Amino acid sequence: MLNFNFCSPTEFVFGKGRENETGYYVRKYGGSKVLLHYGGGSAVRSGLLDRVKTSLTANGIAFVELGGVKPNPRDTLVYEGIELCRREQVDFILAVGGGSSIDSSKAIAMGVPYEGDFWDFYVTGKQIERAIPVGTVLTIAAAGSEGSGDSVITKEADGLKRGAGSDLIRPRFSVLNPELTCTLPAYQTACGATDIMAHVFERYFTNTTEVEITDRLCEAVLMTMIKETPRVIADPNNYDARANIMWAGMVAHNNIVGVGREQDWNSHGIEHELSALYDCAHGAGLAVIMPAWMEYVCKHDVMRFAQAAVRVWGCKMNFADPEATAHEGIQRFRSFLRSIGMPINFDELGAKKADIPRLVQSFGIGSGETGGFVHLKAEDITKIYEIAAHAAL
Amino acid sequence: MLNFNFCSPTEFVFGKGRENETGYYVRKYGGSKVLLHYGGGSAVRSGLLDRVKTSLTANGIAFVELGGVKPNPRDTLVYEGIELCRREQVDFILAVGGGSSIDSSKAIAMGVPYEGDFWDFYVTGKQIERAIPVGTVLTIAAAGSEGSGDSVITKEADGLKRGAGSDLIRPRFSVLNPELTCTLPAYQTACGATDIMAHVFERYFTNTTEVEITDRLCEAVLMTMIKETPRVIADPNNYDARANIMWAGMVAHNNIVGVGREQDWNSHGIEHELSALYDCAHGAGLAVIMPAWMEYVCKHDVMRFAQAAVRVWGCKMNFADPEATAHEGIQRFRSFLRSIGMPINFDELGAKKADIPRLVQSFGIGSGETGGFVHLKAEDITKIYEIAAHAAL
Repeated sequence: MLNFNFCSPTEFVFGKGRENETGYYVRKYGGSKVLLHYGGGSAVRSGLLDRVKTSLTANGIAFVELGGVKPNPRDTLVYEGIELCRREQVDFILAVGGGSSIDSSKAIAMGVPYEGDFWDFYVTGKQIERAIPVGTVLTIAAAGSEGSGDSVITKEADGLKRGAGSDLIRPRFSVLNPELTCTLPAYQTACGATDIMAHVFERYFTNTTEVEITDRLCEAVLMTMIKETPRVIADPNNYDARANIMWAGMVAHNNIVGVGREQDWNSHGIEHELSALYDCAHGAGLAVIMPAWMEYVCKHDVMRFAQAAVRVWGCKMNFADPEATAHEGIQRFRSFLRSIGMPINFDELGAKKADIPRLVQSFGIGSGETGGFVHLKAEDITKIYEIAAHAAL
Repeated sequence: MLNFNFCSPTEFVFGKGRENETGYYVRKYGGSKVLLHYGGGSAVRSGLLDRVKTSLTANGIAFVELGGVKPNPRDTLVYEGIELCRREQVDFILAVGGGSSIDSSKAIAMGVPYEGDFWDFYVTGKQIERAIPVGTVLTIAAAGSEGSGDSVITKEADGLKRGAGSDLIRPRFSVLNPELTCTLPAYQTACGATDIMAHVFERYFTNTTEVEITDRLCEAVLMTMIKETPRVIADPNNYDARANIMWAGMVAHNNIVGVGREQDWNSHGIEHELSALYDCAHGAGLAVIMPAWMEYVCKHDVMRFAQAAVRVWGCKMNFADPEATAHEGIQRFRSFLRSIGMPINFDELGAKKADIPRLVQSFGIGSGETGGFVHLKAEDITKIYEIAAHAAL
């Protein structure tokens, strides 16, 4: 196991009706004037936003609003939010929504006290030194941003999608009410589940040996997703299955299952180019890319893939041919994704094979390498897109 | 899943040599004058205490010392520590040691700013409202106190062992260097491992249904302990196995595997009377009590015990007789405990069957009931002690 630091100070406020306590927690964590930041649509229609406002007002907290966050959140709205917060002297940002609203909120939070361009944190590797506090009311189990110190933003002008991270932008509190996810369409639910599983696999495939505890914790989250996701696809109002998925989504990405080990994250990078170009859902892109990546890198550590196949997917070990077991696990992953309504190749996603050179170009590693488990060059990434283009069961 | 709040803000500083950074973290979390609180013996002999002092001094932090913490830490030393902290205007308590030093430190931390008797928090259910900050340098993987908001103290005058808890006494930081545990005798290592597994089982056996994520996380910790403990018993210097156990010990007890579900905790209560009367190691007492408790309550939810047997212990499910599978799992637990050098009955522990009435008396529930999974009365506890007295493989 590698040396590490781990600090996940977020207070999780989990369960039915807990959004009605939002104002209490904003006050507990020092907020007096809030930017209420959200996408719109469902949070407004469902009455959630009104319930949150009622709770804020009941706790004597003033607020201004900025809606309109889109999936793959844009820098342009972040600039608008920073401007608004400065003008209105906002001291707390409350995201109501999913990963996009939360990531956009984190970007605003780091941008407000920073004299330069917030985009510096996403492209120059500049360290975040200050941020105003963020809280969240989560409406989809997916990104894990409710418990993480990460934020991913897309630059509108050129479609560049980049991430920034710091413990300073971990939410102070996150309200997780599984009921709020019951109205999600099946497709979005499945995209979220895929993202959660991908967060675990990015950590699971590692060159760090002797990491049984984090291996087992990763497998725990994956097995939970395999059991619970089909249940919510079949019955959207299954509260308990929604609850298990929601907590699994946090555990998958606050890094408690990934400490002390190298991680990979190439599948996320390779997928980001798909969602940037086609504006498809991140989870759907991952469903196409991640099994393709697995196939391509499997030979690097056949026994680790066989372990996943046996422990997570319940395959029988083929002792004469461990690679066959490894591949069986990957195909079971694809079957699972298909069964919950996810695309598994370019056609089903709406991507075009002819765009592969453009995707690789935009990935932008030139003659360099990327990834923690297997170092990939541009030609490797081309091959992974090609596998993804043609994947089948 | 039940509604819950979860907040584990401790910064974990994990890995080789990290104790040399202790002073930096005390300063980071606001300490300027420290009470260095420890047992003595090994922490002094190994040079650990000197390394910690060097780090404090290098960071400009003054300190006073109070050693002499014993297993099953006593109220008398807590009073002494409170007095010393007030006199010396200490603003941070640094525990160097295991659960006993940490629990004693937490008791001092809540006692210093409190006008009444700190024992109130342990017996009257009085809420902790303030505490000075605590940090830890852990030397044994066992109690999980490095990441928990709990403290257990024994009243010297009458041997009464009681617990108090609050998020206010969760450590600000905990240094976890697995190297520090390599010098532990095999017996203490095994006691620690048993305690870790017991912390998980206390949470695992629940009446809350539909808690797949926490079930799977519990099983992950247990399977890790089953794999790694025999390795460190066979080779005390196996760093990686020590590291897996150390992180498992934290995960087992900061409650991330226990949120949203009823928990039991009767085995801990029943064991506490053994360690209070015989001053035996808590882990050794648990090795005798917990399987006996399992046998006694198994019929309450046979399928849950069968699940543990199959998923954790690798038993084959006996579909014609699930109770046989459940009992096979319990016996495998006993075999495992025996294999790592733990006692499994009264004789091996040095307890006397004739003391059972006294143990039950001291447990002190009178005509009441206790426990979250199965409510036990005094006569049930008598029967569990009797099973424990005679247990065999």
